[in-house]
Amino acid sequence: MQTSKNIIIIGAGLVGSLLSIYLAKRGHKVTIYERRPDMRTQKIVAGRSINLALSDRGIKALGEVGILDEVMKIAIPMPGRAIHTEQGQIVFQPYGKEGQAINSVSRGALNIKLIDLAEQEGVTVLFNEKLETVNWKDQTVHFSNLSASFANRDNDIEADTPQQSTIPYQLLFGSDGAFSAARLSHMLQHEHFNYQQYYINCGYKELNIPAGENGQFLIDKNALHIWPRKDYMLIALPNTDGSFTCTLFFPQQGAFSFKNLDTEDKVTQFFSAHFADVMVLIPDLAKQFLHNPSSSLVTVKCYPWIRENSFSLIGDAAHAIVPFFGQGMNCGFEDCSVLNNLIEVHGDDWKSILENFQILRKPDADAIADMAINNFREMSEKTADPKFILQKKIEARLHEIYPDQWIPAYTQVTFSPQIRYSEALQRGQKQELIMQEIMKLPKIEQTWMQETIHEMILNQLKN
Amino acid sequence: MQTSKNIIIIGAGLVGSLLSIYLAKRGHKVTIYERRPDMRTQKIVAGRSINLALSDRGIKALGEVGILDEVMKIAIPMPGRAIHTEQGQIVFQPYGKEGQAINSVSRGALNIKLIDLAEQEGVTVLFNEKLETVNWKDQTVHFSNLSASFANRDNDIEADTPQQSTIPYQLLFGSDGAFSAARLSHMLQHEHFNYQQYYINCGYKELNIPAGENGQFLIDKNALHIWPRKDYMLIALPNTDGSFTCTLFFPQQGAFSFKNLDTEDKVTQFFSAHFADVMVLIPDLAKQFLHNPSSSLVTVKCYPWIRENSFSLIGDAAHAIVPFFGQGMNCGFEDCSVLNNLIEVHGDDWKSILENFQILRKPDADAIADMAINNFREMSEKTADPKFILQKKIEARLHEIYPDQWIPAYTQVTFSPQIRYSEALQRGQKQELIMQEIMKLPKIEQTWMQETIHEMILNQLKN
Repeated sequence: MQTSKNIIIIGAGLVGSLLSIYLAKRGHKVTIYERRPDMRTQKIVAGRSINLALSDRGIKALGEVGILDEVMKIAIPMPGRAIHTEQGQIVFQPYGKEGQAINSVSRGALNIKLIDLAEQEGVTVLFNEKLETVNWKDQTVHFSNLSASFANRDNDIEADTPQQSTIPYQLLFGSDGAFSAARLSHMLQHEHFNYQQYYINCGYKELNIPAGENGQFLIDKNALHIWPRKDYMLIALPNTDGSFTCTLFFPQQGAFSFKNLDTEDKVTQFFSAHFADVMVLIPDLAKQFLHNPSSSLVTVKCYPWIRENSFSLIGDAAHAIVPFFGQGMNCGFEDCSVLNNLIEVHGDDWKSILENFQILRKPDADAIADMAINNFREMSEKTADPKFILQKKIEARLHEIYPDQWIPAYTQVTFSPQIRYSEALQRGQKQELIMQEIMKLPKIEQTWMQETIHEMILNQLKN
Repeated sequence: MQTSKNIIIIGAGLVGSLLSIYLAKRGHKVTIYERRPDMRTQKIVAGRSINLALSDRGIKALGEVGILDEVMKIAIPMPGRAIHTEQGQIVFQPYGKEGQAINSVSRGALNIKLIDLAEQEGVTVLFNEKLETVNWKDQTVHFSNLSASFANRDNDIEADTPQQSTIPYQLLFGSDGAFSAARLSHMLQHEHFNYQQYYINCGYKELNIPAGENGQFLIDKNALHIWPRKDYMLIALPNTDGSFTCTLFFPQQGAFSFKNLDTEDKVTQFFSAHFADVMVLIPDLAKQFLHNPSSSLVTVKCYPWIRENSFSLIGDAAHAIVPFFGQGMNCGFEDCSVLNNLIEVHGDDWKSILENFQILRKPDADAIADMAINNFREMSEKTADPKFILQKKIEARLHEIYPDQWIPAYTQVTFSPQIRYSEALQRGQKQELIMQEIMKLPKIEQTWMQETIHEMILNQLKN
């Protein structure tokens, strides 16, 4: 048990809520300040949330604080991809070995569960509290309360003036996401803050495949569905009620883009041509498309994450990534686990805990950010390519024969939490170069099961 | 003549002042809002300004609005580098051909001259006006006036409350430097703003070599003096009063760093060991060192620069670079010239002017940013290397024989405004690869004047 500290966490999202549970379990007095209203009492704004794929790094972190079973109750295992070709065929590609799966969870449902569990651990969660500024020297945070207060109105104070408060902290964590207000305050008052935000041209829009009669799943429940179409793609993840949350990844600008598909006719025509089977599944597709907002995808890299031995960014606030490797949440949860291990090692020495946290974690965050960008092409283009499918088969076979020596890149990232992201990036790149040469061998389609081929690959790996 | 517009420029620095002259000459009503007090009436905070090296791109831009002669009155030509070795020798290296020089100007004196010239053109320059926010839709800028107003105090209004004003514009330019408030407002209200700020570990501190008796220059007046010491370096540029403004580029952190040289003894010991001849020139060196602030060096890249057909960033606000190529001001002045050419082409079509401005200028700004970072090693390390000096000699000779085909990289950037920065980067990289091979030739020290060598080089350039 550490000496109990007065800890403020900015943001009651997935990472902030989980972090609060970790810290409360160590005896700290933890308060979360969240800018949005309580999603348990107010309806969430729909149409802006990609369904999440919980995998082994996230699972490990949830297990460490004993809440995995609770979370798995709302998760649906997806052992592989179901690829929907333009010709209407569906091909299943397993993600890993028998028994390995990623798990579909609704962001909203998971977040509510984590906030409930945090409160059960004694965490105080305050909503409608907007971070205005941090005073790093005095160790105070200044908030505006955004909920129009009836009390104020009765007292003849103008209702529009938000109530202000200045709250002292001993430790402060910024887990308020890709557009973090904590990070902005850190950045604007920092002499040497390295910062990068990078938007890709691809945006996204949520669509919904409703459940069939009696909550029946209209397509395979246990798969992550992908309609890969090169410059864009549609994905669908199952929900527990029988529906699927779809996300269309699509250019923001250009000939086929959110900007140009602006009438029901254009939308219907476009989907009929490229996603004919989806038209059947979503009767009001054009209406959903035009009604739901489109959002953009950003990568954020920054450094340093910490300040004054009493502050750190964590999760997306420190390292926002694009969703194409399904690792945003898993990486943020792993942050909590890494921090927890450092607490184990350094006890009350928060200077060492925070310094080691950013030194250890920064290269891993950079690595998964780059892998996530690169994975767009794998999902949207290569999954439809027979050569790529063969390569994955060869790699799966290699992994079977040499389980410790050849681990496919996807498996390293998704099912191997003992391998750091930065190591997975390096090993993955090396393996990819070897496989590119192997795929050029004449008649590889026929010879790939031969032992001599497998030995040749492994020898190259050892060089 | 364009249709006269109501134009607001943020920042009365070098680029803002020059831009205002360009626009006023075209009949626009131009007002500059500057956050700092008027440097003509208030003493400038010393110790934070690198002397500037005005070269051909800047000269061309000043010439286009007819103010070059005025500016050259306060400039001192520097046809080459004077390298001060650790052993106390001084070696002169010309920058270009006979007659080519870069020009030392004091930032303060130049800025005052440009503001005076702007006012003579009818530009209104308002000081102590801090940009708070921009309302892009209404096309208004909100300012706080930072000068404590006596009138307010007399009227019993609290003197500390800055006077607020909201000013409409038809066109708005943000030329408020590396830490631009206009850019921040643009960024915080933008959906897809790509942004990067990157600090190098090297910081800088200003020192001053006083004039000798009767304003005598104590070292060669017509040279940019460099004391290259690999991980750090000192430079000195002449002032018209016989003094030199020195800049020490030095690590912020580490064994030898601004952080660690914190007593007079340590400073004296360090300079005696590495800059013995400077100790003689600056009697109060240790005092200056401890008194003057150290500053950091940042590169900023961002995109888009423009918004709503009525706003653009320009100069450092759009593309801050490190000073090691002497191009920060020259690049900003060239921005004004490029914008002016686009006005010539597109007339009243500001949409086309601004769109083409950023499309044309962004790759050049990126190129000079990268070249400036790379040039630190050239200045601080290579200028002391006999192999490098020989390479420069060979390149100068090639330029003499084939003036249009082989142009040394430094000459392309500094003396060839007809070559875009992005082109200079590419051509320079290609030439450098060729020279690296040439420098490996056996006995190149003896053979470099041979025609066969020159022809070999030129043939490789043609491939």
